[in-house]
Amino acid sequence: MFKRILIANRGEIAVRIIRACMEMGIETVAVYSEADKDAMHVYLADRAVCIGPAQSQKSYLNIPAIITAAKLTGAEAIHPGFGFLSENSKFASLCSLADIKFIGPSSSAIELMGDKATARETMKKANVPVVPGSEGKLYTAEEAKKVADKIGYPVMIKASSGGGGRGMRVVNDEREFIKLFNLCQQESKTAFNDDAMYVEKYIVNPRHIEFQILSDSFGKILYLGERDCTLQRRNQKVLEEAPSIILDDTLREKMGQAAVKAAKACNYENAGTVEFLLDRDKNFYFMEMNTRVQVEHPVTEMVTGIDIIKEQIKIAAGEPLQYEQKDIKITGHAIECRINAENPNMNFRPSPGKVTTFHTPGGFGVRVDSAIYQDYSIPPFYDSMIAKLIVHGKDRNEAIDKMKVALSQFVIDGVDNNIDFLLRLLCSDDVINNNYDTSYIEKWLKKSGE
Amino acid sequence: MFKRILIANRGEIAVRIIRACMEMGIETVAVYSEADKDAMHVYLADRAVCIGPAQSQKSYLNIPAIITAAKLTGAEAIHPGFGFLSENSKFASLCSLADIKFIGPSSSAIELMGDKATARETMKKANVPVVPGSEGKLYTAEEAKKVADKIGYPVMIKASSGGGGRGMRVVNDEREFIKLFNLCQQESKTAFNDDAMYVEKYIVNPRHIEFQILSDSFGKILYLGERDCTLQRRNQKVLEEAPSIILDDTLREKMGQAAVKAAKACNYENAGTVEFLLDRDKNFYFMEMNTRVQVEHPVTEMVTGIDIIKEQIKIAAGEPLQYEQKDIKITGHAIECRINAENPNMNFRPSPGKVTTFHTPGGFGVRVDSAIYQDYSIPPFYDSMIAKLIVHGKDRNEAIDKMKVALSQFVIDGVDNNIDFLLRLLCSDDVINNNYDTSYIEKWLKKSGE
Repeated sequence: MFKRILIANRGEIAVRIIRACMEMGIETVAVYSEADKDAMHVYLADRAVCIGPAQSQKSYLNIPAIITAAKLTGAEAIHPGFGFLSENSKFASLCSLADIKFIGPSSSAIELMGDKATARETMKKANVPVVPGSEGKLYTAEEAKKVADKIGYPVMIKASSGGGGRGMRVVNDEREFIKLFNLCQQESKTAFNDDAMYVEKYIVNPRHIEFQILSDSFGKILYLGERDCTLQRRNQKVLEEAPSIILDDTLREKMGQAAVKAAKACNYENAGTVEFLLDRDKNFYFMEMNTRVQVEHPVTEMVTGIDIIKEQIKIAAGEPLQYEQKDIKITGHAIECRINAENPNMNFRPSPGKVTTFHTPGGFGVRVDSAIYQDYSIPPFYDSMIAKLIVHGKDRNEAIDKMKVALSQFVIDGVDNNIDFLLRLLCSDDVINNNYDTSYIEKWLKKSGE
Repeated sequence: MFKRILIANRGEIAVRIIRACMEMGIETVAVYSEADKDAMHVYLADRAVCIGPAQSQKSYLNIPAIITAAKLTGAEAIHPGFGFLSENSKFASLCSLADIKFIGPSSSAIELMGDKATARETMKKANVPVVPGSEGKLYTAEEAKKVADKIGYPVMIKASSGGGGRGMRVVNDEREFIKLFNLCQQESKTAFNDDAMYVEKYIVNPRHIEFQILSDSFGKILYLGERDCTLQRRNQKVLEEAPSIILDDTLREKMGQAAVKAAKACNYENAGTVEFLLDRDKNFYFMEMNTRVQVEHPVTEMVTGIDIIKEQIKIAAGEPLQYEQKDIKITGHAIECRINAENPNMNFRPSPGKVTTFHTPGGFGVRVDSAIYQDYSIPPFYDSMIAKLIVHGKDRNEAIDKMKVALSQFVIDGVDNNIDFLLRLLCSDDVINNNYDTSYIEKWLKKSGE
């Protein structure tokens, strides 16, 4: 096992990793920017090295500074956490070159999954379902319609060079196709000077379902069940849960096996997440693979009892997974809420500043992962997530009730936060009745005039 | 289900009960003394009633004031927590008379188990092993020796009227018996003017093992495994764990069934705990039954997933237990440390006062039950326990490591506390190697000069 690990991150995930290392008897090295000298991860680690100014580009994304810090402190491995350098294949390969174990998959697996087109091709070859679509570029309405007819409606027409919603239309009926294709192509010509188009199936009211994968260096790949992360705002997850109550055991096993195939297809090692879209008819489509630990990994830990960070470290140290797929049991239901320093009434504007009171809820089935302490000043340079509140109940209803009670007993003074917003969301009938898709929060905000 | 429950307690257990009620959608009424107007349970409950001055006798033990508060607020049931009125059979029967459901066993069960002699007789009749001893009073060395020879050595000679260690001797060998009996009897005559003596088996290096019982109003009695509470100081538990790693499945089942017999013998209803002494040869003896929830109930919750407070409320409301003995599975290992405002270097003198910083640890498998908040002043009138820190790991070693990390990240300023003491205790080889008995902490304190 490693004697010393450097954590190339900050905030609650750095604290999470330090705690796991401490429990395993591994020494820790924190790195920090000049803005983070009072950050909790700096206090908790055995050693801490300043790696540059506040801006991430010059500190938490500063590869030479981080690798130098690891060499100088004798760290044998680097845990990248999430965000920052966690999915940077160059960083992973430079760690290798410096004879430091990168706690994550190989540089080539990161690269393969980082490129959407290559990832899609790899998944198709591995028989993992992807969103059906045209293979190459399309230039005429007639050839495009053939593809659309084959895929089945509704379809999405997209400009190859598109962005910002321009040159993009949903087509619900074949009779509309030619007209809308021409409209999109015209828009694309005007906006991007490119008439190459693309057609893919439009997934109606999708759910975001992702599978946690653990893969050791001996080729054993296991899935730890799924997380339902459908509740998002602007593609940012807001509330995550495990298991997803819209999956039955058959579909869970089918999707889990597809996730294992996806991991196998890129020779995956360490923890990873395969994200799928699930449509109303319970068809699922590969969306992407995140080649790192996720923010929402705690909900999986709560229902499986498996410590994902410790598993990452053990896998990186060359240890085999100590259990089989049949040993992984899902118990109860877990929900995570991301507590952000932001003002939901001001379009979720970040609210950095001094936290004058930080009282966390407690009791049975309540977990708090955070790096905030009383009188700590949240710097304005990084993301606004300041805590994760996770609850575990015997079923989804109990977990929702527990989350409401815990949120109501969470006291944060000094900075704005989204606790009331989360409480209102959890009181929504649609959320309680599991009746939502990935666009739900934005529609709900509009409807409730928030 | 009840619409409204009054909680006749304070501190963390009142908060624990309020949280359970909130999660169940039950309204709560707090009661408080004049010294507790800023206590957390007062803030969290839907309503709060002042029941008298600071002294417990005039407030938390004031039966008429509490029953009046329940009637005035329309509470249908009273949860007594632990301590205070929780094992007061008169209070239980007065609740009944006032048509308020007492959340606990019947008044007669409390009374039966409250009297040590009656409890012992009841257990013997029910074939629950009790510490072997003489049946009636003994007056001569010869008749006493017959009893001792039959019981087997070592035995304890006790003066019937004894106390403070006088008239009490351990006899390790039959050859010493007559001499020591005469010595004890002489001491007893001198000290108490009574020559009646008693002989019982001396349990060498005992472990304190207790079984959690749940019993519904339909006669179903289940045991939720055991807790090992051997680490005590002056008969106060310091650290509790579940399961006990010195029990194997056969002994666990045997003791669990004895605990069920004990509960059956007093027509027990609701949650209760049967405490046993376990000797070095794995013989167990009934010590007493606690007819209420225990301080250490969370370790059982962590390893079984069963919310004991919610079960208490459901049983009191007449609901049947929803599972069978075979459904109760023990997963992993849990440890609880009692965090007290006290100074271990000043003979554990209580340290009330203002808590200027209260930073609780968090993360996977860490639970905090507490009623302390930043700038709260701990009043000097009640017990010094201010938090319970509970951890859950996959095995005992992981739980110990997790507890050490969590203790080291628990920050309490403004009042003395026992966190360092607990950390040192958890670093003791004997504790790590499970090599201790109920007298361990006192011997360890002497040895280490603390």
